[in-house]
Amino acid sequence: MMTDMATERSRSTVEEEVERVVEQSKELHEAAASLISKASKEAQILRLRALSVDTSILKLRSSIDSLLSHRRLDPKLADKLEDELNRARCILDDGEASSFLPGKAQGRFLKMFIGPIDVRATRKDVQLKVKQEYNRFRDRTAFLFLLFPSALLVLRSWIWNRCLPAFPVQLYQAWLLFLYTGLALRENILRVNGSDIRSWWIYHHYCAMAMALVSLTWEIKGQPNCVEKQRGVELFLQWAMMQGVAMLLQNRYQRQRLYTRIALGKAKRMDVVWGETAGVDGQLWLLCPILFVLQGFEAYVGLLLLQTAFVGVVSEWQVIFCGILLILMAVGNFENTVQTLVAKSRFKAKMKKSKSKQEFD
Amino acid sequence: MMTDMATERSRSTVEEEVERVVEQSKELHEAAASLISKASKEAQILRLRALSVDTSILKLRSSIDSLLSHRRLDPKLADKLEDELNRARCILDDGEASSFLPGKAQGRFLKMFIGPIDVRATRKDVQLKVKQEYNRFRDRTAFLFLLFPSALLVLRSWIWNRCLPAFPVQLYQAWLLFLYTGLALRENILRVNGSDIRSWWIYHHYCAMAMALVSLTWEIKGQPNCVEKQRGVELFLQWAMMQGVAMLLQNRYQRQRLYTRIALGKAKRMDVVWGETAGVDGQLWLLCPILFVLQGFEAYVGLLLLQTAFVGVVSEWQVIFCGILLILMAVGNFENTVQTLVAKSRFKAKMKKSKSKQEFD
Repeated sequence: MMTDMATERSRSTVEEEVERVVEQSKELHEAAASLISKASKEAQILRLRALSVDTSILKLRSSIDSLLSHRRLDPKLADKLEDELNRARCILDDGEASSFLPGKAQGRFLKMFIGPIDVRATRKDVQLKVKQEYNRFRDRTAFLFLLFPSALLVLRSWIWNRCLPAFPVQLYQAWLLFLYTGLALRENILRVNGSDIRSWWIYHHYCAMAMALVSLTWEIKGQPNCVEKQRGVELFLQWAMMQGVAMLLQNRYQRQRLYTRIALGKAKRMDVVWGETAGVDGQLWLLCPILFVLQGFEAYVGLLLLQTAFVGVVSEWQVIFCGILLILMAVGNFENTVQTLVAKSRFKAKMKKSKSKQEFD
Repeated sequence: MMTDMATERSRSTVEEEVERVVEQSKELHEAAASLISKASKEAQILRLRALSVDTSILKLRSSIDSLLSHRRLDPKLADKLEDELNRARCILDDGEASSFLPGKAQGRFLKMFIGPIDVRATRKDVQLKVKQEYNRFRDRTAFLFLLFPSALLVLRSWIWNRCLPAFPVQLYQAWLLFLYTGLALRENILRVNGSDIRSWWIYHHYCAMAMALVSLTWEIKGQPNCVEKQRGVELFLQWAMMQGVAMLLQNRYQRQRLYTRIALGKAKRMDVVWGETAGVDGQLWLLCPILFVLQGFEAYVGLLLLQTAFVGVVSEWQVIFCGILLILMAVGNFENTVQTLVAKSRFKAKMKKSKSKQEFD
């Protein structure tokens, strides 16, 4: 009788609890649904507001310009108003409202690899975390970028008797492929999150991916004349070493610059200034020659590869492909570096002008 | 005088508008910040509630089991209660609350490629879109998976005189590398979004990625004896063709099954049942033998590769590596197929038992 009662009691307790849990699940589902729909409605409203402020800024900029050109606005006042508009722009872009501004579409590259998942972060601190991780990734990368080819070249003359074995070179090429894929994916994600990275630097990484992939299929073991056959590999490794030095310098410098710009409130923090160039400032006179030498060397390596291919030492299609790709990348890099420098000097000239005008006034 | 007045008026209008736009930006920033912080607070509350309901379900399940084993609960009632608990589980997992349940951590693989960006979708319909896209990607894939190696094999005997040129094979291998990387990334993302995909199928794709990468460095041009040297490639292509057929069958079948299960309310819709196996049902008697034959053939190709390597026709390390990898993959696939079948038959036996009991009662 006792057990029966205990059984009865525990049974009814369990039954009640099960019922309660089902009830709680339903309530939770409804609460979640209502929170999600409410939040998405409010987000939609903010999106519309952000869009309207965004267009207002654009319109005001053009009307200031037109007033100025018709001499119906004092240049000094125009500068002041433009500064104000820049401030509004910064508040939008750097503040929490940025995730409600119309974003860049996720490109085909991201879709190809990860499908249609949304990679835009809502919160500004998350966006910054993504940017920081990208910088750290670049730092690690630059270090390995210097270490890997140097080690190969040193071992080549010390141990391998000027004839590289295939495996370590292929390991290096596989690493390059992974690296460039990772960089291209991250840069696409940064772009969705509002970074102003120049398209060329992303295309540049697509080209580098293609080259790493093609170089993997490239026959390295050189019979009968190893030194001659590996001339292309040797040049490529030397170029990669220089690239590593340039990347280390750039990373250090660009982070400083970014912090300065953030402190001045003039930069969107999602700006990525990657690549062989991009807005350069203080150590410019150290960095710029290195970049141009690097680009020249890149084109030179490309030409040498084409030469070896056409003279007939190595007649594989991979050599021709890599040669052409290197030359294209060198030209693109040069063009974009020059464009950035021109944009920069224009900006400086403008700043100088407005400054001297203020002093004059 | 007129122009002066007009200038004065337009100037003051522009000034006012600029001021207003700056004000609007500030307001928008604050509204966005408050919406984001409010939404994240409410989400945190829901997360705690979801966690508590989740643990309640687990606790109740174990107490029903213990009551049942002490014969203090009628088996029929226990079944009914367990059904109720399953219902609660489904409401949580399939409903909007699912994004507030503790999720699986984003693995190292995703971090390596795309960094720390959050790929969990909040809304259920977005999660479903991701799943659908994954299915479409698999469909396209399966088709190419069949077409690519078949074309290579047909051309080999028709045009290329039983000796494959390197380029098309390497193109195929590069495509495989891209494909497996895409699949592994997508499956990791599905997992973060609540899919129950077995870990093995993701590991399997990591192995396949490694194999595709290694096979790219594999020398294909076979002098002096091409037919003998390309024996491994030939076997691999034949295996890939079979794989394509199996994938097509599986995709068709698993989608049907998934829809049935969704209709029955028994499946989480994020379940992915990819791979050489996984919960099989109606066309089981067609699919299962194909899967086992495929796995056997996979191991056989692996053994043949090892044989060619050790007999000395092709003594490259890539051949040994791919041989071992194929055997490991075959064993893993077999193990996981059997495990799934065992789990399935257990589930069926249980269903049968409870059904016959109900009929008996």
